[in-house]
Amino acid sequence: MRNITVLSGGMGGARFLQGLLHGLRRGDLPGVAPDAEVTVVANTADDWWVHGLKVCPDLDTVMYTLGAGIDRERGWGRREETWSIREELTAYGVEPTWFGLGDRDVATHLVRTQMLDAGYSLSQVTGALCRRWQPGVTLLPMTDDRVETHVAIADPDSPSGRRVVHFQEYWVRLRAEVPAEAVVVVGLDDSSPAPGVVEAIAEADLVLLPPSNPVVSIGTILGVPGLREALADTAAPVVGISPIVGGAHVRGMAEQMLSAIGVEVTAGAVGRHYGARADGGVLDGWLIDERDADQLAQLTAAGLRAGAVPLMMTDDDATAAMARAAVELVAG
Amino acid sequence: MRNITVLSGGMGGARFLQGLLHGLRRGDLPGVAPDAEVTVVANTADDWWVHGLKVCPDLDTVMYTLGAGIDRERGWGRREETWSIREELTAYGVEPTWFGLGDRDVATHLVRTQMLDAGYSLSQVTGALCRRWQPGVTLLPMTDDRVETHVAIADPDSPSGRRVVHFQEYWVRLRAEVPAEAVVVVGLDDSSPAPGVVEAIAEADLVLLPPSNPVVSIGTILGVPGLREALADTAAPVVGISPIVGGAHVRGMAEQMLSAIGVEVTAGAVGRHYGARADGGVLDGWLIDERDADQLAQLTAAGLRAGAVPLMMTDDDATAAMARAAVELVAG
Repeated sequence: MRNITVLSGGMGGARFLQGLLHGLRRGDLPGVAPDAEVTVVANTADDWWVHGLKVCPDLDTVMYTLGAGIDRERGWGRREETWSIREELTAYGVEPTWFGLGDRDVATHLVRTQMLDAGYSLSQVTGALCRRWQPGVTLLPMTDDRVETHVAIADPDSPSGRRVVHFQEYWVRLRAEVPAEAVVVVGLDDSSPAPGVVEAIAEADLVLLPPSNPVVSIGTILGVPGLREALADTAAPVVGISPIVGGAHVRGMAEQMLSAIGVEVTAGAVGRHYGARADGGVLDGWLIDERDADQLAQLTAAGLRAGAVPLMMTDDDATAAMARAAVELVAG
Repeated sequence: MRNITVLSGGMGGARFLQGLLHGLRRGDLPGVAPDAEVTVVANTADDWWVHGLKVCPDLDTVMYTLGAGIDRERGWGRREETWSIREELTAYGVEPTWFGLGDRDVATHLVRTQMLDAGYSLSQVTGALCRRWQPGVTLLPMTDDRVETHVAIADPDSPSGRRVVHFQEYWVRLRAEVPAEAVVVVGLDDSSPAPGVVEAIAEADLVLLPPSNPVVSIGTILGVPGLREALADTAAPVVGISPIVGGAHVRGMAEQMLSAIGVEVTAGAVGRHYGARADGGVLDGWLIDERDADQLAQLTAAGLRAGAVPLMMTDDDATAAMARAAVELVAG
């Protein structure tokens, strides 16, 4: 195998990619050339405009993580970050005060916003930013079109009993602590895959779905018209890794999002939600945690090659072992 | 006197205003009520768009200085400033690398740019920013229209032998170290005074021209169509203070700019360049430094009330004494 394509969200995807590259480059993946090329198709449905800046959390988390610019402790944003702008915007009383942008991070958004204003596409901008960061992968946005995830929550004060908030407001301001009644992804149905995305899937020798959020990360990528067809048509095996371990998400808010779309919060249910390619789904293989081994049978019954291994990305070695297990699942 | 209007550039104007307010509020100005209202009409021809942000150096220098947000040592920009964005933009290789924006300062530009994008005028934006800074004056841009000063310099590599650079490039990158052959103020002839500007001059009891640059600060303000007429028509006396002391500017680059327009670099020549209102000029009085007292006669001959006092703004008391002398020149 010489070409690996990964569909990725933010923190979970970035951490997985770091371990994948760690294992790949040292020749740890069976049947995969150590210098194989990795293309990342990143979710852009979390993107938003704030303080006049275009912010792309998942693209940047992948770029900063693989380019050694991430704050490792937080898992997002820049290391050695300063927060003068956040202080100042608060002093000006400019909303939203709950979304703090670091100063170094703002520089990325300034470059991006200015390039977008000048007419470059998000793909082109991402390529330009990556010339600095050298993430060691080809990083592609899922689409160059504007796609925005919104979340409907209960609001007794509203005539409809509901309020729809931007994903960032749900996640950052509300900390995903209120139940999500529905997920509404504005613009998704009318979006097109960014240049290179369909090709990266078609020409891949292996497609991986890291343990990213099945609804608002992988789910939105799969919702770009043409993406599911590309996955159905590719000769490459498609393997996913469960973000649900022991009936709960490891990080993030997959639980809330799965509940919103009526999918049980178990590794087995998420695998069946993605479904087997033979049945119109997207997966050939589905890797779950060893604690969830009792769900292997239902996955096999659903037409998936399933395996159970430790799924905690505690360090690059542990994550590389997960990547190796994912490859082994379909290489055999 | 209850209303004072000041036409101001950046650093020199801001420092003068600070001393003026210091003297005014303690009742130091003869015939002027200590609670007199001060309106500042600030030059906006130095403004520019950089990294997608609208930067207004003179408005901000006045606002930060009077709002106690200025870096006193530098005389421009924010105190307790951080420089993460400058580092990052340099790492991205984004031009212009010679124009460093501080992080706190960027927050101001983000608020301004976003408000302008939303359709607010520069006057409205300035009012909004001043709600935080409370500068103790009404701060007005000279115009809400885009006006930009450019400087023509010699360039042997150019077919015309000349190159035209933005004022900021001349000042910040070239440090005004190459001769200016001409000053070209784009948009000035088609601009209109911002709301309140003509009224502030018409209703003033006193109009002051601080020791700002006579060409690219006061000169551009006077170039806004309608401004000279307002000064000609106002019942208020108009008094200026020379930025040239002993045949040189105290700070900035008045020398280079005066040379570019063919005006001798002396306090007397600048006073005569502004001219007496009776002869179609803008001044009633012109205050020069005691070292230039030999030029009093030529100024009187030119129809101006002239005085010679120490003109060094070493501290607020010294500056307040200058303001007092300016008032005395026309109050007698």
